Amino acid sequence: MERITLKTTRRQEFLEITPLIEDIVAKSGTKNGICHIYVPHTTCGLTINENADPSVKADILSVLEQLIPENGRYRHSEGNSDAHIKSSIMGHSLSVIIEGGSLRLGTWQGIFLCEFDGPRTRQIWIKTLS
Amino acid sequence: MERITLKTTRRQEFLEITPLIEDIVAKSGTKNGICHIYVPHTTCGLTINENADPSVKADILSVLEQLIPENGRYRHSEGNSDAHIKSSIMGHSLSVIIEGGSLRLGTWQGIFLCEFDGPRTRQIWIKTLS
Amino acid sequence: MERITLKTTRRQEFLEITPLIEDIVAKSGTKNGICHIYVPHTTCGLTINENADPSVKADILSVLEQLIPENGRYRHSEGNSDAHIKSSIMGHSLSVIIEGGSLRLGTWQGIFLCEFDGPRTRQIWIKTLS
Repeated sequence: MERITLKTTRRQEFLEITPLIEDIVAKSGTKNGICHIYVPHTTCGLTINENADPSVKADILSVLEQLIPENGRYRHSEGNSDAHIKSSIMGHSLSVIIEGGSLRLGTWQGIFLCEFDGPRTRQIWIKTLS
Repeated sequence: MERITLKTTRRQEFLEITPLIEDIVAKSGTKNGICHIYVPHTTCGLTINENADPSVKADILSVLEQLIPENGRYRHSEGNSDAHIKSSIMGHSLSVIIEGGSLRLGTWQGIFLCEFDGPRTRQIWIKTLS
Repeated sequence: MERITLKTTRRQEFLEITPLIEDIVAKSGTKNGICHIYVPHTTCGLTINENADPSVKADILSVLEQLIPENGRYRHSEGNSDAHIKSSIMGHSLSVIIEGGSLRLGTWQGIFLCEFDGPRTRQIWIKTLS
């Protein structure tokens, strides 16, 4: 298992991690298989979406905030209930195909860490299987 | 890696792809393992749900449209922001168990491509691991 | 493939299944690999979230109910359309890393069965790959 550690800088943001994952796949020597990507947190998630126009990630964050506002009425008293809910909606694990020694993503796809309760130091765990 | 290419016919629709995936699993010769299903797009997703009553998929599309309307206020200027958001909520990868050479789904389960910005030609990528 | 059978006791609830999954991983003898967890149903799902404060799961259920009410207007006539939709939003498959013979979860993470149309008897299917 490989680990990436990174620092987020806002309460809510999407950070692209595609090149970091590609590096790990290259170093793993896995030619054909699956790259499993996992976040060990409960207030951030993972998603795949467009990495060309940054307004796409802004729209996703904005709609999630409209549907699940930070300042809604929640029972959990730490002020980050919205972040827990958003993380379950985006999800904590992704599986991406490896072929020819590299990650197979669609033309417009990037892999994003979805921070919902930053700024924090976050980890991403990666395991490749052949 | 195997590929399925299919054409969607509406802006938003769920297309069942279960028989296509079952064919690929049968041809792969994988007796026991996992079937990874992946869409390389950013405005369509994948989900598992009931394939008996078509009103179930209509209800999912209808609720997503109420929550994330095509004509909402978004920054991304291509008119398909709702499709990007819906695809991240449904997700882009699925992992289904293979046993005895066939896909193990629940009695009422089917696998669906979720088109949110069609009609388009879409690909589905499949990789089985033993 | 291993199976867990459990009974839910309410229409909507999150049941923690982490210790059950950990037992299966230990018995499987898998030292390094991936644990695939799958629900073969269409009105319940799986998620990972905080298992320390039970108010987190209550908040997730409560927000999903606000956004997708049981008594909304749906076409599917069985009275459980909300449950089908919520299950697709949470998802039906999870992939968690195994290292050193045990499941690698974050400090605050637990694995939950998300019941949306109980009480029912539910199955969870588990397959580990090295």
